[in-house]
Amino acid sequence: MAKAAILGYGTVGSGTAYVLQTNEKEIEKRTGEKIELARILDIRTFPGDRNESLVTPDFDEILNDPEISVVAETMGGLKPAYEFTKKLLLAGKSVVTSNKELVSVHGPELFEIAKEKGVKYLFEASVGGGIPVIHPLINCLAANKIEEIKGILNGTTNYILTKMFAEGVDFDSALKDAMAKGYAEKDPTADIEGYDAKRKISILASIGCGKYIDPDGIHTEGISKIDKTDVEYAEMLGGKIKLMGFAKFSENGVTCSVEPSIVHCKSPIFAVDDVFNCVTVTGNAVGEVMFYGKGAGKEATASAVVSDIIDAVMDKSLSFPAGYEIADKSPMLPYGETVASYLVRFLKESEYNMEEISEIRKEDSRVLEAEDNEFAIITKEMTVAELDKKLSGYKVIKIIRICN
Amino acid sequence: MAKAAILGYGTVGSGTAYVLQTNEKEIEKRTGEKIELARILDIRTFPGDRNESLVTPDFDEILNDPEISVVAETMGGLKPAYEFTKKLLLAGKSVVTSNKELVSVHGPELFEIAKEKGVKYLFEASVGGGIPVIHPLINCLAANKIEEIKGILNGTTNYILTKMFAEGVDFDSALKDAMAKGYAEKDPTADIEGYDAKRKISILASIGCGKYIDPDGIHTEGISKIDKTDVEYAEMLGGKIKLMGFAKFSENGVTCSVEPSIVHCKSPIFAVDDVFNCVTVTGNAVGEVMFYGKGAGKEATASAVVSDIIDAVMDKSLSFPAGYEIADKSPMLPYGETVASYLVRFLKESEYNMEEISEIRKEDSRVLEAEDNEFAIITKEMTVAELDKKLSGYKVIKIIRICN
Repeated sequence: MAKAAILGYGTVGSGTAYVLQTNEKEIEKRTGEKIELARILDIRTFPGDRNESLVTPDFDEILNDPEISVVAETMGGLKPAYEFTKKLLLAGKSVVTSNKELVSVHGPELFEIAKEKGVKYLFEASVGGGIPVIHPLINCLAANKIEEIKGILNGTTNYILTKMFAEGVDFDSALKDAMAKGYAEKDPTADIEGYDAKRKISILASIGCGKYIDPDGIHTEGISKIDKTDVEYAEMLGGKIKLMGFAKFSENGVTCSVEPSIVHCKSPIFAVDDVFNCVTVTGNAVGEVMFYGKGAGKEATASAVVSDIIDAVMDKSLSFPAGYEIADKSPMLPYGETVASYLVRFLKESEYNMEEISEIRKEDSRVLEAEDNEFAIITKEMTVAELDKKLSGYKVIKIIRICN
Repeated sequence: MAKAAILGYGTVGSGTAYVLQTNEKEIEKRTGEKIELARILDIRTFPGDRNESLVTPDFDEILNDPEISVVAETMGGLKPAYEFTKKLLLAGKSVVTSNKELVSVHGPELFEIAKEKGVKYLFEASVGGGIPVIHPLINCLAANKIEEIKGILNGTTNYILTKMFAEGVDFDSALKDAMAKGYAEKDPTADIEGYDAKRKISILASIGCGKYIDPDGIHTEGISKIDKTDVEYAEMLGGKIKLMGFAKFSENGVTCSVEPSIVHCKSPIFAVDDVFNCVTVTGNAVGEVMFYGKGAGKEATASAVVSDIIDAVMDKSLSFPAGYEIADKSPMLPYGETVASYLVRFLKESEYNMEEISEIRKEDSRVLEAEDNEFAIITKEMTVAELDKKLSGYKVIKIIRICN
């Protein structure tokens, strides 16, 4: 028998309690071990709740309980989650978390402490909600040199973009609808400006190369400026716009970004709509594999948290170094070194040299015109730095990456 | 340092050697352990091959080498793979395999021996080629009660069906093309009649419920009878036909089958074309998640074999009971208890009672007519037994399941 605690009885925390308790018998049958929820940290009280008696506002009751061997941190944010996690790991307890902000900012330090203390710090729920991504990436694809990781990492923005494409509404209406449905928070900035996706791609990119990628250095564009003309161009190209996180690995380092991108209908990513997420991983042996599912939600995220609890309880071997470390020199390359193909919208009024533009246009691609006063082209694959140079002097309305 | 051997230097075996050796440094960096390929069993010789000197026709050289701790069985078939695997496990060596036939027939006995001897018998590569499926199902979704597993489990048939839909060719032409491209074997029976998919769904269904599901009892239909009219009906419904494996779990037991099914364009499975495979798993906490990628191929399958080798070498904890056991009473329910909705094609010449047919027709669904002498309906959800009863007395041309 193992005893577990939960920090934070909000959406994910209460979901974790629910899944642990509802599936108690399955978990015991499958693992041969009973996992009991022993304590819940929350400053609030929950009169009438099934777990009312387990709730305590006193962190030390969990920290100092020698019977509690694993703690699920589902509070979110850095304060006090960082301090609590550190104390728990130092006390020799495994911690599992859904907190992408904490992992993306303090991951390497926490992995190091866990390693030193012979316990685990697991973070499957920090990316892609319940979709198994982190564990398969670390364990199941261990035979591969990872070449690329990309994906739709935020459900709110994917819902908004899906609505814009399916119903032809503009960004503001789609956002309003997402808020009404509870898919977007009152302050939706972290979602729509791509900060949430940035934290997640920083975690995935760090695993991919084994070295820490600081989210603050990742080039990040949100979706708030996507307009109906962009939608029209994407449709002309047989695609949809998705907010994508990208990480591409090479001998020289990693290019990493979050940006709205045009995904062609032949890609499996094209069908990933509404609040669903996906992560595709390209390995030099396995080729491209994709993981797909609901990227958020109470019980889906709790599924990943509880699986990590089970892992921490069952697997004492600490076989894989489940994390990444800070490198002397960050592996991240400047955004200008990103190689991709782009849709470039030009203002017609500007003076332009069509010959020069043809030079960067992808072979066999058409010049598109969604509006009278503009035109657009698809560029050849080139670095962002090169593209910027080629476009200097032109009145460019917008540049949108094409997802390969 | 760990030493590994490979049984069978064919497609998957040589791919396994290639991945182990090409990604040697990544694997060592990631796991902290060097894994050396020490021996390869094959009755053939491979003059000039990089690993020529490692090849031996003598199984005992591997069995009796105390330094070899893990063996990849990539021979396929039951003989002599079964005997060899058993001997190796009994000798205290871990075995990893891509052999779905062996796992689906003798899995429980081999898991039991592995458990007794404190070694591993791992089989990630037996389903879905390189796509991580088995490991995520056992480990990452351990918090869930598994409700359903379904998927496209055979690349050859998916290639053929994709061609039939994209180019409007008939089954025979599409099969010929698949053979010319090397996607179908000279004797394509195991693929096109669904036997390969049957073995794979038996493995997945067994994991899903923890009890052995004998592939011989699984209702299996192939794709050789799918004709252009079926294609037309599927298109009328906004779908495609895919060869699907299904396993549905309930308190009473498991319904399990392999059958051509109509997948609607809104499903993420719809976009899984060509030789790609996918497996979707529905858990009571996580909802539906999907794993997607190339279901076959030398290096893709080798990716899974090598990941299992790494797992066997690294993780000595034997934490999860990675397998399933034989139940006193098979959990498999009769095919007649399968609940689904169906497309039923009726011959017009037969006498039929439209009122009776309307009774089983799904509400809001149309009566379809792809040919002059027939019509088709979509049924409500009902058991196969009930459907058979309702249809008795009618001249039914064909019944095709609708994938939910």
